[in-house]
Amino acid sequence: MPLARNSSALSEPFKISSASQANSAHAVTESEKLQGVSDQIDTRTAWLSPDLLAAVRANVPLVYVDVIPVRVDSHGRVTDVGLLLKVASDGSISRMLVSGRVLYGERIRDALVRHLEKDLGPLALPHIPPNPSPFTIAEYFPDPEISGFVDPRHHAVSLAYVVPVSGDCTPTQEALNLAWFTPAEAASSKIAADMTGGQDRLLRLGLAHVGKLP
Amino acid sequence: MPLARNSSALSEPFKISSASQANSAHAVTESEKLQGVSDQIDTRTAWLSPDLLAAVRANVPLVYVDVIPVRVDSHGRVTDVGLLLKVASDGSISRMLVSGRVLYGERIRDALVRHLEKDLGPLALPHIPPNPSPFTIAEYFPDPEISGFVDPRHHAVSLAYVVPVSGDCTPTQEALNLAWFTPAEAASSKIAADMTGGQDRLLRLGLAHVGKLP
Amino acid sequence: MPLARNSSALSEPFKISSASQANSAHAVTESEKLQGVSDQIDTRTAWLSPDLLAAVRANVPLVYVDVIPVRVDSHGRVTDVGLLLKVASDGSISRMLVSGRVLYGERIRDALVRHLEKDLGPLALPHIPPNPSPFTIAEYFPDPEISGFVDPRHHAVSLAYVVPVSGDCTPTQEALNLAWFTPAEAASSKIAADMTGGQDRLLRLGLAHVGKLP
Amino acid sequence: MPLARNSSALSEPFKISSASQANSAHAVTESEKLQGVSDQIDTRTAWLSPDLLAAVRANVPLVYVDVIPVRVDSHGRVTDVGLLLKVASDGSISRMLVSGRVLYGERIRDALVRHLEKDLGPLALPHIPPNPSPFTIAEYFPDPEISGFVDPRHHAVSLAYVVPVSGDCTPTQEALNLAWFTPAEAASSKIAADMTGGQDRLLRLGLAHVGKLP
Repeated sequence: MPLARNSSALSEPFKISSASQANSAHAVTESEKLQGVSDQIDTRTAWLSPDLLAAVRANVPLVYVDVIPVRVDSHGRVTDVGLLLKVASDGSISRMLVSGRVLYGERIRDALVRHLEKDLGPLALPHIPPNPSPFTIAEYFPDPEISGFVDPRHHAVSLAYVVPVSGDCTPTQEALNLAWFTPAEAASSKIAADMTGGQDRLLRLGLAHVGKLP
Repeated sequence: MPLARNSSALSEPFKISSASQANSAHAVTESEKLQGVSDQIDTRTAWLSPDLLAAVRANVPLVYVDVIPVRVDSHGRVTDVGLLLKVASDGSISRMLVSGRVLYGERIRDALVRHLEKDLGPLALPHIPPNPSPFTIAEYFPDPEISGFVDPRHHAVSLAYVVPVSGDCTPTQEALNLAWFTPAEAASSKIAADMTGGQDRLLRLGLAHVGKLP
Repeated sequence: MPLARNSSALSEPFKISSASQANSAHAVTESEKLQGVSDQIDTRTAWLSPDLLAAVRANVPLVYVDVIPVRVDSHGRVTDVGLLLKVASDGSISRMLVSGRVLYGERIRDALVRHLEKDLGPLALPHIPPNPSPFTIAEYFPDPEISGFVDPRHHAVSLAYVVPVSGDCTPTQEALNLAWFTPAEAASSKIAADMTGGQDRLLRLGLAHVGKLP
Repeated sequence: MPLARNSSALSEPFKISSASQANSAHAVTESEKLQGVSDQIDTRTAWLSPDLLAAVRANVPLVYVDVIPVRVDSHGRVTDVGLLLKVASDGSISRMLVSGRVLYGERIRDALVRHLEKDLGPLALPHIPPNPSPFTIAEYFPDPEISGFVDPRHHAVSLAYVVPVSGDCTPTQEALNLAWFTPAEAASSKIAADMTGGQDRLLRLGLAHVGKLP
């Protein structure tokens, strides 16, 4: 049985292409599409067959992390907020947070580092906070009426963190672009209009947490 | 196909009896044992067949909540800490926190209320904090070496809260007893010896959060 | 030497009338005006002579608390936010948070209860959080450029809390009115226009903390 | 009137030598002793005459910060905790946290950086957290019965933070030594015996906050 060696497929085995993904807070990658039609088994990352995947998604909430990458000055003040520009599954382009699933057997800290590396490159030098508590919990549902956080694919419980990065951030292939904004810009309605799935609100909650909501 | 109407089976469909559950942080109930050998389907609570259950547990972390129920005085100071006395699957008796799974489609707040009602009765009058952020994240693994929080059945990511209760607490059938301790007693090595799965440490982290660690 | 026995003078000996108080985040009461021209000594609350008062204010930051009183439902969700309507020293009327100084020898919890009782009456039944950590620190300065939180009288370091109240709230004489708003209303620009000293921003930070910022 | 130009006196004008300082949580420096017998006025740092100093201390709580300096790994896990070794005023030697007063006009962030530089040297490279909220509030009183946090000189409200440092830490003259301990060592009764004023408890609260309390 052939194993996909693509690291992105490895890290995010659950994200499959689906017509229902329009307006999802999470992007869909090429490797995920490939994976959706394969039938993979891997002891480390627990790939599931499409049937099992569908069953899991219909029966248990998934554990996610959301990260707002920021630049800080020498006194810890947030000076810039990083947002990814990604193609969503319907072809639209959205500003997005760093976000992804926590794998079976994976520590939250390891998931944070993995997703930051995946989206910002290996030289981003993230400073994961020593305190494991997220600044908020974003509960994503297919139904937009429940919490305002929307993921058409499944119910996800996402632990949200603000993480300073001090190195070079190189957007990966999956992201078209990484752009930095001032906190005031990031909280503006202009940026909010470019975000989906409630992530603009999550961004504002994070800015409030660091005292930077206008 | 017969459906178990027992409310406990309804609320905790995943907990099955297993020889490996000795020293688990979570108790096993009679209804769960029953459920383990049935083959239930329920659209609301997503009962899984034993095969699917095993597949889920082997492939994704489950979302849990842990609650430290406390009594507070009129100024919010914690005066007493409530601990359940439950029979573990190996017949041993442990002091335990209020704890359980978050169901598909369920808000964290609703899971907190449901598990508090289940363990402390319908008159406990819990005061769920307005802030959704847990005081810590307890990551349970079958392997005790990974985080110190142990659940032999699966990988669980548990959001931990301290919740004041102001009403009458009546231990349910599943719990032999509910006992109240001073914060100093709750943090003692004597109580720690009666707890399993790392919940004694989680209790001390919660006491520290409210400034009550000796 | 006559001592003012007015409980408000007792509780807030430092607030004196001043032309510079226009736009201050904190209200000035009649009793404070009286006190400003008296020469009081009290071992409990440390009234200071006008000279000493001025010296203290010019030399050390004062410790304050700010409280956002809220109504919550049975699951801890904030449903309403309480705002006081007070006359500021320049005759203008502002919406304000519950706010005041921490006295010498006084615990933070006791200051929270005292100021809530002072502004919402003795039957408000506040639920002071067991966790002593504020959701943010508001640093007030006479210079509006420093932090955006302004108090023309002095530098104050204010610990900010969201506190659910479950009883009857009766605005005291000092407050013209207590009004309840939905979280969306409280975060609106309309309400912000009625607040001064940066308290509208502090209110939005508190709403974000409880996940209720739109 | 001669002004002490010593930067330490400048930064900590309030700390004076006193027989009552034995067992204080805060150290007394040579420059502070000098300052205690002088009669200084300075518009920037608000030196007070001994009379005014005594009056301030007797009438208002002072604002302090306490910092637990830590080393973290690339995933944010605390690996080491730094403790200072200082001579207390009675000649005894204690392990101490980085700690000191917030000056008039000074932001909390600036006070954190200033005290870290003062005690760990200018190359310590502290990573001040973007979130301004302390992990707890330590309320120091002369009376050890009130909160367990003791400062014989005054009532201090201290905002407590855990701050990772990634540079070279060089203990300054005032500190005899800076030693690094594992979290388990730092939480041990052996280290607690070398600490005074309740700082051992504050240290354990901080270790719990970062999930590192044994």
